[in-house]
Amino acid sequence: MSAPLGKILSPFSRNKKLLNKLSPLLGFAPNRIRLYEMAFIHKSASIVLPNGDVVNNERLEYLGDAILDAIIADFLFKEFPDKDEGFLTKMRAKMVKRKHLNLLAYRMGIDQLIVSQTSPVNVSKYLYGNAFEALIGAIYLDKGYRRTAKFIERVIKRYVDLERLKNTESDYKSKLIEWAQKNKKELVFDSNEEINQAHSLPVFITHIYMMDEDLGKGAGHSKKEAEQKAAKVALEKISN
Amino acid sequence: MSAPLGKILSPFSRNKKLLNKLSPLLGFAPNRIRLYEMAFIHKSASIVLPNGDVVNNERLEYLGDAILDAIIADFLFKEFPDKDEGFLTKMRAKMVKRKHLNLLAYRMGIDQLIVSQTSPVNVSKYLYGNAFEALIGAIYLDKGYRRTAKFIERVIKRYVDLERLKNTESDYKSKLIEWAQKNKKELVFDSNEEINQAHSLPVFITHIYMMDEDLGKGAGHSKKEAEQKAAKVALEKISN
Repeated sequence: MSAPLGKILSPFSRNKKLLNKLSPLLGFAPNRIRLYEMAFIHKSASIVLPNGDVVNNERLEYLGDAILDAIIADFLFKEFPDKDEGFLTKMRAKMVKRKHLNLLAYRMGIDQLIVSQTSPVNVSKYLYGNAFEALIGAIYLDKGYRRTAKFIERVIKRYVDLERLKNTESDYKSKLIEWAQKNKKELVFDSNEEINQAHSLPVFITHIYMMDEDLGKGAGHSKKEAEQKAAKVALEKISN
Repeated sequence: MSAPLGKILSPFSRNKKLLNKLSPLLGFAPNRIRLYEMAFIHKSASIVLPNGDVVNNERLEYLGDAILDAIIADFLFKEFPDKDEGFLTKMRAKMVKRKHLNLLAYRMGIDQLIVSQTSPVNVSKYLYGNAFEALIGAIYLDKGYRRTAKFIERVIKRYVDLERLKNTESDYKSKLIEWAQKNKKELVFDSNEEINQAHSLPVFITHIYMMDEDLGKGAGHSKKEAEQKAAKVALEKISN
């Protein structure tokens, strides 16, 4: 159980140091400094209060994750007035995916602020990104939605290359179809569902053909996964 | 491509009628009425403007979906100050899942406002819930985040039974563990990963044991899925 925010006694003497590091990062002076302290406490360094409550950044991360999603959704809605919801959804997924957030947090220097007890070997893969989300939760509680949106827009301007992200294509099927259209080739995606008899689980198999040539095969737990895997193989084949 | 909002000419004469129906539902008077009109236009009834732009509620639905998630996340964060992020995440998932939103929208009378061309047979399963999300997008653009949050809090108070939702448990593993703790029984979850040779896909198998008795077995594409399936079987077994 996490502690209600009001109850937290500050058992750390890092206040001033944190404040000095935070203000330039945030672009404003925080009011409720304890929220920000909490944002950087990884689960492994949880503080147990005398009443048994446990303090770490997990509740703030839960909150910040949702607030970030909303702010990015709004940002893209306004940034790309002519794009449909398919484009916007994909773009948002690229921006908030854990790997991207983690890199962003590292660029911002958030790694310097984290308090954790995990050894470098056991460190969570997305420790920085998670703390970044918790920081967003803290800003939201301290300053409200609009100020948080402004903070995130500043981060985007400074650290995110929107044009590059727009052109990052991890969707192999779309890539392959695009290539085929450019080169006036006809593709056939042939997907079948098999049942794995031993465990009665479905398995999907996709073959991709171009003019009777078998371009690639993929298997997956869903049709989508099988198609993506087959398209990846096909893309490798045509690029050789 | 959707149209920039400013460009939409109102090709409908429903303005006044819509306004009369909307105000009591919203609890405030809308300003930018065209946003609300747009929120109720299902893709099947898309309006094509002279410049080729297509108007329907899909972009607003994308936006409203994210705003709703954030507002619910914040609402639960404050409503349950002693609960951890696992509880909050589950609770939010229950509140925003499509089936629940659809029911909510129906209770609110949103079905009466939708413009669609799909026959009742082809109608999207979540037509109402999607329009509800689009409506949230419209309110957000018209009135801002705080007013939208107030609107949603009113909807929750009036239409959502939080206590009941809290006790809805679709998580079989938790249910089983809870049962075992109450009855002082020891459970063992034994999970193994096998490789499906034909397609080199991983398959997970979980056995659940209670005092050497095999309570159930489940197979899945992830450990989590296998555990859930095995726990479901085990729950059926112990309830007989």
